[in-house]
Amino acid sequence: MDVISVIRTKRDKGELSPEQIDWVIDAYTRGAVADEQMSALAMAILLNGMNRDEIARWTAAMIASGERMNFDALSRPTADKHSTGGVGDKITLPLAPLVAACGAAVPQLSGRGLGHTGGTLDKLESIPGWRALLSNEEMLHVLDTTGAVICAAGDGLAPADKKLYALRDVTGTVEAIPLIASSIMSKKIAEGTGSLVLDVKVGTGAFMKTIEDARELASTMVALGTDSGVKTVALLTDMSTPLGLTAGNALEVRESVEVLAGGGPQDVVDLTLALAREMLDAAGLKDADPAKALKDGSAMDVWRRMISAQGGDPDAALPVARERHVVTAPSSGVLTRLDAYDIGIAAWRLGAGRARKEDPVQAGAGVELHARPGDTVTAGQPLLTLHTDTPEKFDYALGSLTSAWDIAPEGTDFKATPIVLDRIA
Amino acid sequence: MDVISVIRTKRDKGELSPEQIDWVIDAYTRGAVADEQMSALAMAILLNGMNRDEIARWTAAMIASGERMNFDALSRPTADKHSTGGVGDKITLPLAPLVAACGAAVPQLSGRGLGHTGGTLDKLESIPGWRALLSNEEMLHVLDTTGAVICAAGDGLAPADKKLYALRDVTGTVEAIPLIASSIMSKKIAEGTGSLVLDVKVGTGAFMKTIEDARELASTMVALGTDSGVKTVALLTDMSTPLGLTAGNALEVRESVEVLAGGGPQDVVDLTLALAREMLDAAGLKDADPAKALKDGSAMDVWRRMISAQGGDPDAALPVARERHVVTAPSSGVLTRLDAYDIGIAAWRLGAGRARKEDPVQAGAGVELHARPGDTVTAGQPLLTLHTDTPEKFDYALGSLTSAWDIAPEGTDFKATPIVLDRIA
Repeated sequence: MDVISVIRTKRDKGELSPEQIDWVIDAYTRGAVADEQMSALAMAILLNGMNRDEIARWTAAMIASGERMNFDALSRPTADKHSTGGVGDKITLPLAPLVAACGAAVPQLSGRGLGHTGGTLDKLESIPGWRALLSNEEMLHVLDTTGAVICAAGDGLAPADKKLYALRDVTGTVEAIPLIASSIMSKKIAEGTGSLVLDVKVGTGAFMKTIEDARELASTMVALGTDSGVKTVALLTDMSTPLGLTAGNALEVRESVEVLAGGGPQDVVDLTLALAREMLDAAGLKDADPAKALKDGSAMDVWRRMISAQGGDPDAALPVARERHVVTAPSSGVLTRLDAYDIGIAAWRLGAGRARKEDPVQAGAGVELHARPGDTVTAGQPLLTLHTDTPEKFDYALGSLTSAWDIAPEGTDFKATPIVLDRIA
Repeated sequence: MDVISVIRTKRDKGELSPEQIDWVIDAYTRGAVADEQMSALAMAILLNGMNRDEIARWTAAMIASGERMNFDALSRPTADKHSTGGVGDKITLPLAPLVAACGAAVPQLSGRGLGHTGGTLDKLESIPGWRALLSNEEMLHVLDTTGAVICAAGDGLAPADKKLYALRDVTGTVEAIPLIASSIMSKKIAEGTGSLVLDVKVGTGAFMKTIEDARELASTMVALGTDSGVKTVALLTDMSTPLGLTAGNALEVRESVEVLAGGGPQDVVDLTLALAREMLDAAGLKDADPAKALKDGSAMDVWRRMISAQGGDPDAALPVARERHVVTAPSSGVLTRLDAYDIGIAAWRLGAGRARKEDPVQAGAGVELHARPGDTVTAGQPLLTLHTDTPEKFDYALGSLTSAWDIAPEGTDFKATPIVLDRIA
């Protein structure tokens, strides 16, 4: 087996054999295949694709590169959720304690933000004292005692994926459906969850810009999960507008706590409940009532225990950015569009996100929305508030907002996009 | 300018701008673009192509990465030749002194063999004492005093190409016409020759397996040369059968000396003369008579002076391999096919070539042909002799010869392929 023949096979539109896939993933993990060889293969895969058999084998080989976890010792059924990432997507924060409050065990191995999409761990780290990094034993203990845990994936899980993901990030090979699907599913299958609900985002603020691409990614991942014995369902959900009224780390924690307190923006509540019902169904808890668990405070109780168990103080004041800048509506009428990508870039430029993996993020930075599509606005009213500790970045952030919204004459008919666009099981 | 946006442009089938090309070649040469980024871009170029404007700019950027040579001080017009590489392709050896004997200056910056194709420098190094590595001053001196020089290209010429070629070699991205064309032409234009004849090989033993691919490569290179003020002509020539009766280093030197002595296999003589006439025409020496210069010994005189000027002894005995193995014809009839690729692989396995750039080659190893397509053979007569210092490799070499020839019943009509298939100017 040599790497050039593997690269040539895919370059020339051939099908990679199981032996080629097993070998190349293992050799890359060991360092016997060099980064420049793997990136050439990744580009060939991006341009020439992989079929379902190849993707399944690729995923299995990445799982085999590391350890597998096991939640069999837990008394509750496990339910996990993965979002492909968007702007203002704080759903994991209220969702994990909510589903736990309804009887499932929710192990959420989460990531950090890169580029315009936020990261769950960055958001939670704005809570004073909270720790993302747990040992496997600590993770199981938090999960067992509180019903939910949100933490960083350990280094032992699918190390081939960890290495390949970092490589794809710097070589223009992120946007390949076979590689995205295998990357997500290798970690989720290795993690050992019994069921998995995928939130596949569609729209300007998502990786998948079209419903067709999102559907292909979703059905690929559902097939991978199902074939590996994980009950897997996908919702395709709208990411043309940011979720809720905030994009930023502490800003989103505050909004999540509002939802757990029974309030919060309607779209965040709706999506949290839709995903909670899917997770509970998949875990076999069909009689649970997540809407009730939000209202009666039981989800909030789990949240407080979960944050405390990881060193966080649920009552501590959240960080606030040092400077604000208000963007006002330039005309009166109906706000018909507020672009998720543009808002995501603005939040990132204000300091909420990072350009390189090793960069720090500002806990208080981000964008606050004062209106959402469908709302009537008056010229001069606040539309957005920008938050940052580095006010010299205001102009840079404003540069991403020059065509971020449309305001139509008053009385214009506005048809809202539903939050859930499709379901694939 | 960032490298990921450059990679994405080509990945998404866009046209690279002149600024993107200049930047990425310069940044790669400086080490600011990493190997894994350049290999992803090379794969995207291989799969999505480059148009003529992009290829011209890419070539110019590679030239600009290093020094340019200048032959203006010479009293003779310069004529250079480049072959895309084949099996038994020793043509440079008789051709350079022949064209010099006819009045041109012939600077041949040559390469080493890799894989199944031989390298001119490896062949000449089988002559005791001969040195491939000359300083620019030494090179000009040999050229000025003997009329011809065959040596390694200096490190200063197109360093971007040197780095990129080594990368393509290990990442399955060699076979991209835009990259092959720009690699060859950047070195030839930087070298400063006034005219250039390209020998583009077609067939099993060549990089280009089809006449269409060879024609595209040839016309791309002719356009690049012409646009840079180098009078450039290409011949497409057959490489389905090895050239002459030998493939190997010292074996080919011996055959070249036979040609310079007025003998040698007809196909080698024919191709040498065809290329010599093109070079002399391109250099404006239309009245020269290369056939006469082969017969009257003047080409041999230049050969002897040229070899001596680089430390070689033209009268020294050439190395002979320690062991031989004769392969006999399994049946009687007309030899209708003798595969260049299979013979090339056999020579390589016997030790004539190298698997990695740093490997040594055996001077005496190779394959000797006792018949060529069109010849009548008798069962049991010698068809090939294998030469090596490592007889344990005989079985390995024989493994590449299991379907290397076809013998048809006696009286079968055989139509020989002409050596020159097309001409592009």
